[in-house]
Amino acid sequence: MSKVWQVYLSGEIHTDWREQIESMTKAKNLPVHFTHPVTNHENSDNCGATILGNEDKPFWFDHKGGKVNAIRTRTLMRDADIVVVRFGDKYKQWNAAFDAGYAAALGKSLIILHAPEHRHALKEVDAAALAVAEKPEQIVQILDYVITGSLPVK
Amino acid sequence: MSKVWQVYLSGEIHTDWREQIESMTKAKNLPVHFTHPVTNHENSDNCGATILGNEDKPFWFDHKGGKVNAIRTRTLMRDADIVVVRFGDKYKQWNAAFDAGYAAALGKSLIILHAPEHRHALKEVDAAALAVAEKPEQIVQILDYVITGSLPVK
Amino acid sequence: MSKVWQVYLSGEIHTDWREQIESMTKAKNLPVHFTHPVTNHENSDNCGATILGNEDKPFWFDHKGGKVNAIRTRTLMRDADIVVVRFGDKYKQWNAAFDAGYAAALGKSLIILHAPEHRHALKEVDAAALAVAEKPEQIVQILDYVITGSLPVK
Amino acid sequence: MSKVWQVYLSGEIHTDWREQIESMTKAKNLPVHFTHPVTNHENSDNCGATILGNEDKPFWFDHKGGKVNAIRTRTLMRDADIVVVRFGDKYKQWNAAFDAGYAAALGKSLIILHAPEHRHALKEVDAAALAVAEKPEQIVQILDYVITGSLPVK
Amino acid sequence: MSKVWQVYLSGEIHTDWREQIESMTKAKNLPVHFTHPVTNHENSDNCGATILGNEDKPFWFDHKGGKVNAIRTRTLMRDADIVVVRFGDKYKQWNAAFDAGYAAALGKSLIILHAPEHRHALKEVDAAALAVAEKPEQIVQILDYVITGSLPVK
Amino acid sequence: MSKVWQVYLSGEIHTDWREQIESMTKAKNLPVHFTHPVTNHENSDNCGATILGNEDKPFWFDHKGGKVNAIRTRTLMRDADIVVVRFGDKYKQWNAAFDAGYAAALGKSLIILHAPEHRHALKEVDAAALAVAEKPEQIVQILDYVITGSLPVK
Amino acid sequence: MSKVWQVYLSGEIHTDWREQIESMTKAKNLPVHFTHPVTNHENSDNCGATILGNEDKPFWFDHKGGKVNAIRTRTLMRDADIVVVRFGDKYKQWNAAFDAGYAAALGKSLIILHAPEHRHALKEVDAAALAVAEKPEQIVQILDYVITGSLPVK
Amino acid sequence: MSKVWQVYLSGEIHTDWREQIESMTKAKNLPVHFTHPVTNHENSDNCGATILGNEDKPFWFDHKGGKVNAIRTRTLMRDADIVVVRFGDKYKQWNAAFDAGYAAALGKSLIILHAPEHRHALKEVDAAALAVAEKPEQIVQILDYVITGSLPVK
Repeated sequence: MSKVWQVYLSGEIHTDWREQIESMTKAKNLPVHFTHPVTNHENSDNCGATILGNEDKPFWFDHKGGKVNAIRTRTLMRDADIVVVRFGDKYKQWNAAFDAGYAAALGKSLIILHAPEHRHALKEVDAAALAVAEKPEQIVQILDYVITGSLPVK
Repeated sequence: MSKVWQVYLSGEIHTDWREQIESMTKAKNLPVHFTHPVTNHENSDNCGATILGNEDKPFWFDHKGGKVNAIRTRTLMRDADIVVVRFGDKYKQWNAAFDAGYAAALGKSLIILHAPEHRHALKEVDAAALAVAEKPEQIVQILDYVITGSLPVK
Repeated sequence: MSKVWQVYLSGEIHTDWREQIESMTKAKNLPVHFTHPVTNHENSDNCGATILGNEDKPFWFDHKGGKVNAIRTRTLMRDADIVVVRFGDKYKQWNAAFDAGYAAALGKSLIILHAPEHRHALKEVDAAALAVAEKPEQIVQILDYVITGSLPVK
Repeated sequence: MSKVWQVYLSGEIHTDWREQIESMTKAKNLPVHFTHPVTNHENSDNCGATILGNEDKPFWFDHKGGKVNAIRTRTLMRDADIVVVRFGDKYKQWNAAFDAGYAAALGKSLIILHAPEHRHALKEVDAAALAVAEKPEQIVQILDYVITGSLPVK
Repeated sequence: MSKVWQVYLSGEIHTDWREQIESMTKAKNLPVHFTHPVTNHENSDNCGATILGNEDKPFWFDHKGGKVNAIRTRTLMRDADIVVVRFGDKYKQWNAAFDAGYAAALGKSLIILHAPEHRHALKEVDAAALAVAEKPEQIVQILDYVITGSLPVK
Repeated sequence: MSKVWQVYLSGEIHTDWREQIESMTKAKNLPVHFTHPVTNHENSDNCGATILGNEDKPFWFDHKGGKVNAIRTRTLMRDADIVVVRFGDKYKQWNAAFDAGYAAALGKSLIILHAPEHRHALKEVDAAALAVAEKPEQIVQILDYVITGSLPVK
Repeated sequence: MSKVWQVYLSGEIHTDWREQIESMTKAKNLPVHFTHPVTNHENSDNCGATILGNEDKPFWFDHKGGKVNAIRTRTLMRDADIVVVRFGDKYKQWNAAFDAGYAAALGKSLIILHAPEHRHALKEVDAAALAVAEKPEQIVQILDYVITGSLPVK
Repeated sequence: MSKVWQVYLSGEIHTDWREQIESMTKAKNLPVHFTHPVTNHENSDNCGATILGNEDKPFWFDHKGGKVNAIRTRTLMRDADIVVVRFGDKYKQWNAAFDAGYAAALGKSLIILHAPEHRHALKEVDAAALAVAEKPEQIVQILDYVITGSLPVK
């Protein structure tokens, strides 16, 4: 029975890069199980206060949410063989970089996905990665190669 | 194949909070496998002496039992993704707090469940938790959110 | 150069058991460095809010304090060879039991110090310990034996 | 012989927050050894190419530098008892967030230092911290409390 | 889906204690998977030389065998939740005691099975165990209790 | 349900030793799942540049490939119970020796397969192994013995 | 400043092998700090009951002692770079073999010292060792070589 | 008190690269403690047989030596912050590559030193390194930068 690779897709939640990776992977029939943080931005912000009680101070409102999200994200990163972190064009994305550091310290295989213009700002993060890619299809090509040994035909 | 989350329910054994959590989780069809200490109080007290031989001194009677229980509790906590610890209204419940410390040191996601009046006495324990709840349904809501990303409709 | 043993004294803060242990150890000239949580109860309660800003809600007031205390306690427990946890007569003392669990999971040599009447309530905690004592002088005798091999003359 | 606490000061390198913390700590005579990344921005950018040979492609120029810096930063973070990460007002600061994640996964005591306006963007990072402060003097007050048990007089 | 407990049965290979435990466990329908060293004494002695080439010197003959056996025993002990070690009446049985130490250092739940007359010689080994039993049926009773919470009816 | 042993076959990729081991293991019906690096030499060399973009400098061309290969090899070695490393007659084979060191530090059961003439050059590597064999059928005999206890009939 | 090697001398306590090793090491001026279990047999037997209170049942008398001894032995083994275990001619010496297994699982460099006639009984233990010696002076020669690179002149 | 960096210099033993690095480091007054394998080739080959008894079979002669050397090399690598591995022009140097893999799995900062012509053969090894250098002075420049932040003046 072949191994099912556990791949955690961290970072940017405003484009459909995860769906692209998942559908291309499915099309290739690769044995991969993808996991990711909650990508519904509103739920991700509100989860702590909605479940555990509202807070007047925004800090504690966010704190409760940040911790509830950590239950999911840290568990799934610990389960992962590979952690892919995508940095997008907007927002601070400090939680993406946090995840990259967390995964690196756990010894996970780290892949970073970002546009070339973020090269300099991400140099310490990229330095911890086993691959730095620009497009979702490269992630799928890496998975295909890593699992089956096949490379895309040029 | 989706992950089955391993959730250990530690602590108070005199109310039906575990059954509540388990039945609500089942109603939502969430992929969770619950484990817990032996909740039959009498068996939990007598297990060591019943199996391994009676003891005159109460200390050794209890010691044998405490250790046999540890075979179960430590194994299941090590297997767990999430450890929920409930503090009730009665008894010292030092084994509940011990479990919380044990789970924290193992890096487990810790959730503490207790009534507001224990806030101050539990401040060091709560400080190690990723969520502090008051009611069993909140545990189920956390599990639902953590696994599916859904929040309760207000 | 002889090893200096690191011994963390956790738990009850309302009697002078730490001072007793420390002075008897000093009298025997044993190479032990003792550490302990902050034992000024008021400071221990107020540290978070005093330094990081006051909170209206008691939960967050306590939460900030619990976490600042954890910076000290977890660091010193990780540094320790031996963790001694004393359970006294008053209060819930859940943080003492939490420390015992934390130390046990880190594989520290655990010694529990308590009056006989807490035997049953502490059975799971005692089961994780390498010694269960009733009086501070027994802790010093253990340290003396463990370090020098000497036993008290009867 | 008292413990010398190892404190790593990560993050923003364009203000004198490190010097402030170090001089206030020295004034209080606290047994702390501070470490930090190379804070000479130009050297930090150029180190890889200067030592190991120049690169035409900016990506590899940066990559060499990012890795040489990692020799220092990861070693010192592993040595640390406490990792303080400061987020400033400018730049992406992804390496600061990476360090926070790295330290969190190693189980270090994490303290985050940032202005209130970054609260929301840092919520996942703050959720992993044992203290969130706004000003350098608070870091020194935490160190003072954690090491000596003293709180600032109000 | 219920957990299948992994139980490694180490030690004495000249009586049928393993078969007794396995058949009683099966009769109770407990979800346990038992593993053990190779119990064919002759094969266990000869495995190294038979496969990897004969040796004139008895030391190397034995050395090759000891190492090939370690491939099995260390892997299965690492997989185990519980390690049971039985000391019999004959032979030095140093490999049994070695296994007990190995399992203890890995943090496995250790159960020791021996006749009362070996009490004193095994005191350091017993001190690392969570249960000390005399008869195979006690092992099965422990497994039953640990897995289902049931105790034998008196 | 019997354990499926995970065996990683590292090293030389120019002869059919893996196929021999796999087919003999299959003939014996042993529960083993074999994994290995990508053995298509050309793909193994080109994977980085093909997927992540070409490089003018051979060092970076190779570097990208070496890292993409590491995603596969380190994950599979971490999953393995046993790591077999074969040294052949040609090439430097430093990656084979690297894998042996990597596996040894992870505590894997290491088996080295090489011709007698490499004895001296491999002495430090062999010293870390639990078996040193010369022929693929010996690997299968070890697996058979380790899993079933059977030895080849002489 | 040169490293002081930590060497734990476990096992047989009825001959002067430790003194021999220590005096020869001192004569060579090697930077070694030796540690060992309590070698006063009577104290080692009585320590638990003398300090923590007498026991009627021999099992608990021994149990208390075994655990108090473990505070010393496990701490010192964890501190050690090298663990030497000597098997003598008398007694069961199961605690020696337990220590060898404990040290092996911690990844310590293990050296076994025994007379040739115990070869077969110790084959699994020897298989985990980096050296198997017969005489105390060989231990000192190993330490000399390992620390300074010098070999005895033949 | 400033940290003394522990740097292990592994690999090629037939040129004076270690002496060059050590003397340049001393000239710069950097707080570095260097360690290395035994570099007396003859002693390194003979250590096992000389101390532990001669062997007729070359395999066991070498095996004893390889293991005695491992006592030194694995201890010192575990102590190291940085492991530098140099590949020279002659011999198989499999033990150098083994050390690189061992250090990588322990999470050490790895620096590889080799001439450009070994680029392709070392690509998997280089891929695990934080720096790849060609000359001893570059190692010293890295140490200088990593410890003091200074770069060589161009």
